[in-house]
Amino acid sequence: MKPWLRSLPLATLFVGVPALLWGAAGPAGDRDLVRLFAILALMLVAGKFSGELFDRIGQPAVLGELLTGAVLGIGGLNLIPTSPGDPLTEIIQVLAEIGVVILLFEIGLETDLRALFRVGGSAAAVALLGVSLPFAVGFLYWVSPLGNRDFDIVGPSTTGIFVGAALTATSVGITARVLTDLKAMGSLEARLVIGAAVIDDVIGLVLLGLVSALAAGTSVGFLDVSRALGVALGFLVVAIGLGLLVAPRIFSLVERMRVRGTLLISAFGLTLLLAAAAELAGSALIIGAFAAGIVLSGTNQFDTIEEQIKPVADIFTPIFFINIGAHLDLGVFNPMTAHNREVLALGALVTVIAAGGKIASGWAVPWSKFNRPAVGLGMMPRGEVGLIFANIGLTSGVLSQELFSVIMIMVITTTFLAPPLLKWSFRRWGMTRDSGTAGPAQQELDKAGDK
Amino acid sequence: MKPWLRSLPLATLFVGVPALLWGAAGPAGDRDLVRLFAILALMLVAGKFSGELFDRIGQPAVLGELLTGAVLGIGGLNLIPTSPGDPLTEIIQVLAEIGVVILLFEIGLETDLRALFRVGGSAAAVALLGVSLPFAVGFLYWVSPLGNRDFDIVGPSTTGIFVGAALTATSVGITARVLTDLKAMGSLEARLVIGAAVIDDVIGLVLLGLVSALAAGTSVGFLDVSRALGVALGFLVVAIGLGLLVAPRIFSLVERMRVRGTLLISAFGLTLLLAAAAELAGSALIIGAFAAGIVLSGTNQFDTIEEQIKPVADIFTPIFFINIGAHLDLGVFNPMTAHNREVLALGALVTVIAAGGKIASGWAVPWSKFNRPAVGLGMMPRGEVGLIFANIGLTSGVLSQELFSVIMIMVITTTFLAPPLLKWSFRRWGMTRDSGTAGPAQQELDKAGDK
Repeated sequence: MKPWLRSLPLATLFVGVPALLWGAAGPAGDRDLVRLFAILALMLVAGKFSGELFDRIGQPAVLGELLTGAVLGIGGLNLIPTSPGDPLTEIIQVLAEIGVVILLFEIGLETDLRALFRVGGSAAAVALLGVSLPFAVGFLYWVSPLGNRDFDIVGPSTTGIFVGAALTATSVGITARVLTDLKAMGSLEARLVIGAAVIDDVIGLVLLGLVSALAAGTSVGFLDVSRALGVALGFLVVAIGLGLLVAPRIFSLVERMRVRGTLLISAFGLTLLLAAAAELAGSALIIGAFAAGIVLSGTNQFDTIEEQIKPVADIFTPIFFINIGAHLDLGVFNPMTAHNREVLALGALVTVIAAGGKIASGWAVPWSKFNRPAVGLGMMPRGEVGLIFANIGLTSGVLSQELFSVIMIMVITTTFLAPPLLKWSFRRWGMTRDSGTAGPAQQELDKAGDK
Repeated sequence: MKPWLRSLPLATLFVGVPALLWGAAGPAGDRDLVRLFAILALMLVAGKFSGELFDRIGQPAVLGELLTGAVLGIGGLNLIPTSPGDPLTEIIQVLAEIGVVILLFEIGLETDLRALFRVGGSAAAVALLGVSLPFAVGFLYWVSPLGNRDFDIVGPSTTGIFVGAALTATSVGITARVLTDLKAMGSLEARLVIGAAVIDDVIGLVLLGLVSALAAGTSVGFLDVSRALGVALGFLVVAIGLGLLVAPRIFSLVERMRVRGTLLISAFGLTLLLAAAAELAGSALIIGAFAAGIVLSGTNQFDTIEEQIKPVADIFTPIFFINIGAHLDLGVFNPMTAHNREVLALGALVTVIAAGGKIASGWAVPWSKFNRPAVGLGMMPRGEVGLIFANIGLTSGVLSQELFSVIMIMVITTTFLAPPLLKWSFRRWGMTRDSGTAGPAQQELDKAGDK
C-alpha cells in the first residue's frame, strides 16, 4: 500500500468524523459537550499534524498550529467557536489560558535564574526600547498630518495613544515556543528575549490599564501608571523570593507522600495560585506561572516535575496557539475593494513601524556581543496581547472598524513572520552560548532538526 | 522543627491563600479566571492531601476526594461553584467530564479484552440482575400501600418508575477508581465489575431517556427502549471492532512523527472523538472513552501512551470526584426537624433496597467461584449517575423535594460506603486471579499498602 493511501483512514477518522459530528450535533443544549469534544479533537489533531508538516519543511511547529487555527477559525471554516454568545467560546478560552499558563510554567522551570539575573539589565534595556520606540513612532505618526483622519473617531491624541500602545505588545508565549522548537532556550539571546518579554508583558498590562481608562473617559496620572508598574514588578520579586525560600521545604515533604500524582498536583496547584495572585496584583496570569516555574526549578524534585508536566503541556499549549489563530480574521487581507486597499496600505505602514521598532530593540545593549537581529525578532510577535488591545479599542468605541482591521493586519503579520524570521536569523548569525563563545550555531540547529 | 510545624507554611499557602483570593476576587467579570484558578488549586491540593490521609488510615484515596468535595461544596463551605447561574459551574463541569473520560480511557487501556470477553456472559448476568432487582423492588414498594403518598406529586406508577430507575445506576468511575486504588484491576472480580458496570451504564442511559420522556409526558413503547439499547450496545461493538482493525496502522504511522507529543495528542484526540460519537449514538461519553482505551491497548505504542496519559489523568480525574462530592448536599442528614426525620427514615429504607439489590447481583453467576460480595459491592456506588437521575426528576417536577432528598441520601450513602466496604470485602474473602486460583489476597493488599 502506498504511504498516502495508508494515511487515508487517518484522514477519515480525524477530519471526516469531527466534521460529521459537528454537523450532526448542532447547537442544542445537551449536545454542547459532544460539540466541544469533537472540536477539541479536531483542533488538537489537525494542529499537531500541521505542526509536523511545518517541522518537516524546516519551519517552527507553532506556525502550523497558528495556521490551523486561522483555517478552522473565524477567518476560515468557522468551526472553532469565537463569538462571545457561544457557550463553548468561553470554555475553549479557559482551556487556552490553562495552556499558556502551563507553557510559561515550563519556560520558568527551564530558566536559569542566576543567568537571567546576569542579563537582567540588558533585558530591561531591550524591553524599554522595544516598548518606547514603537509607541513613540506610532503615536507621532498618528498625531502628525500624515495620520489618516478618516479612520479616526475620537480625535488624534487619544487614538494615537491607542495605536501606539497596541504596537508595544510582545507575545512571550509565541516567542518562548519558537525558541523551544529551535532548541535555543539555553542561548544568551533566548535569555535576553525571555527576560525582556516578561518585562514587556508587565509594561504592556500597565499600558492596557491606561488605555482602558482612557477608553472609559477617565484621566490617568503619572502616579497611577508608576504605582501599577511598581506593584506588578514587586509581585514578581516577592513571589520568587518567598517561593525560593519556602518551596524546597514544602516539596521535599510532598515527595514523601504515597498517593499517585501528589508532586505534580502540588506543582500545578502552586502554578495556578501564583497565576491567580499575579493577575490580582495587576500583573498577568502568565507572569505568575513563570514565577512558579522559577520557584520550582530550585527544588530537588525539579526533574520529576519537569517530566510529568510535559504530557499535560503537550495537550494544553496547542489549544492556546490554535485559539490565537482562530481569532485572526484573514479577511482583512482581501484586496478586492478600494476601501480594503486603503486599510491594507495603512496596515502595511503600521506593520513596518511595529516590526522595525522591535527589531531595533536588539541594539539597545551596546556593551555586549550577540545576535542582535534575533533578539529584536524574538520581541516581534504581538499574538494574543495585540488581539486584546485591538478588541478593547473596538468594543469601547475608540477604534474605528478600519483601525481595528489595521491593527489586526499588524498583529497577524508580526505573529506569522516572527517564527520563520527568528529561525532564519539564528541560522544566519548563530546563537551565543552562555559560556561566552559566539558563532554560528548551524550544527546545533541541524542536530535539532534531525530529531 | 516539629513535623506539624513544618507543614504550617503548606497549610498557609494551599488553604489560606486560595481562601483570601476567593474572598478578594468576588464575582466581577474579568476576575472569573482568577476565581477559577484559585478554586481549582484549592480543589486539587486539598483533594490530594485528604486522599493521602485516607490512604494512610487504610481507606481508598477516592473517598478523601469525595469528602473534600462535600466539605468545599454546596453542603459545606460552598467554595466550589455548583449553581447553574455561576459561569464557573459549567467550566468546572466540563473539566470534570474530561477527567472521567480520561479515567475510563485509562481503565480501557488496562483492560484485557480477551479476558473481558471470557467473563462477558457473567458480567451481563450481573448487570441485568443488578438493574432489575433494585428497579423491581423499588417500583413495587412505591406502588404498594407502603409507599409514602405525602411525598408523591404525580401518582404512584410514574413516581415508582422514577424511584426504581434511580436505584439502578452504577457509577463505573468510582468503582474503577477504588479497584485501581486497591491494585485489584487484574482480578476476576474487577473484570466482572467493570464489564457489568459498563453494561449497566448503557442500560442506565436508556432508562434515563425513558424517564426523561415520562417526565415530559411522552409515552414510551417497548420498541423505543429496545432500539435505544441496541444502538448503544451496537456502537460499542462497532467502535471497538473497527478501532482494533484501523488503530494499529494509524498509530504506527503517528509514532514516526518527530514533533513532541504527537502520540499522546492522537490518543487523546481519538478518545474525545469516540466519547463524542458514543454520546451521539445514545450511549455515554465514558463508554466511548472506554472503547478508545480498549482499541489503543492493542497497539504497539501502548506503553508510551499509558505512561504519558498518567500525569494528565492525575490532574483531571480528581476534579471529577471532588465535583461529585461538591454536588452532594449533606444537609439532608440533619435530623433536627420531624419532617427531616421522616425523609431520613424513607432514605434509609431506599438505601437498603439500593444496596441489597446490587449486592445480590454478585450471586447472578452461580456457575463459577469468586468473591461474590466484592462484585456486588463494586456495583453499589450511584455517584454522578444517581445525581443526574435525581436532578432530572426534581427539575421536571416528577419528584417532590422530599423524594429528591430521599434519593440524595441513597446516592450519598451508597457512594461513600462502597469504597471502604469493597476494600474490606477483598481483605475478608480475597480476590481471584484470572489463572483460576482463588483465595485470600491478603499479601497482595498488604504489598499494595506498603508502596
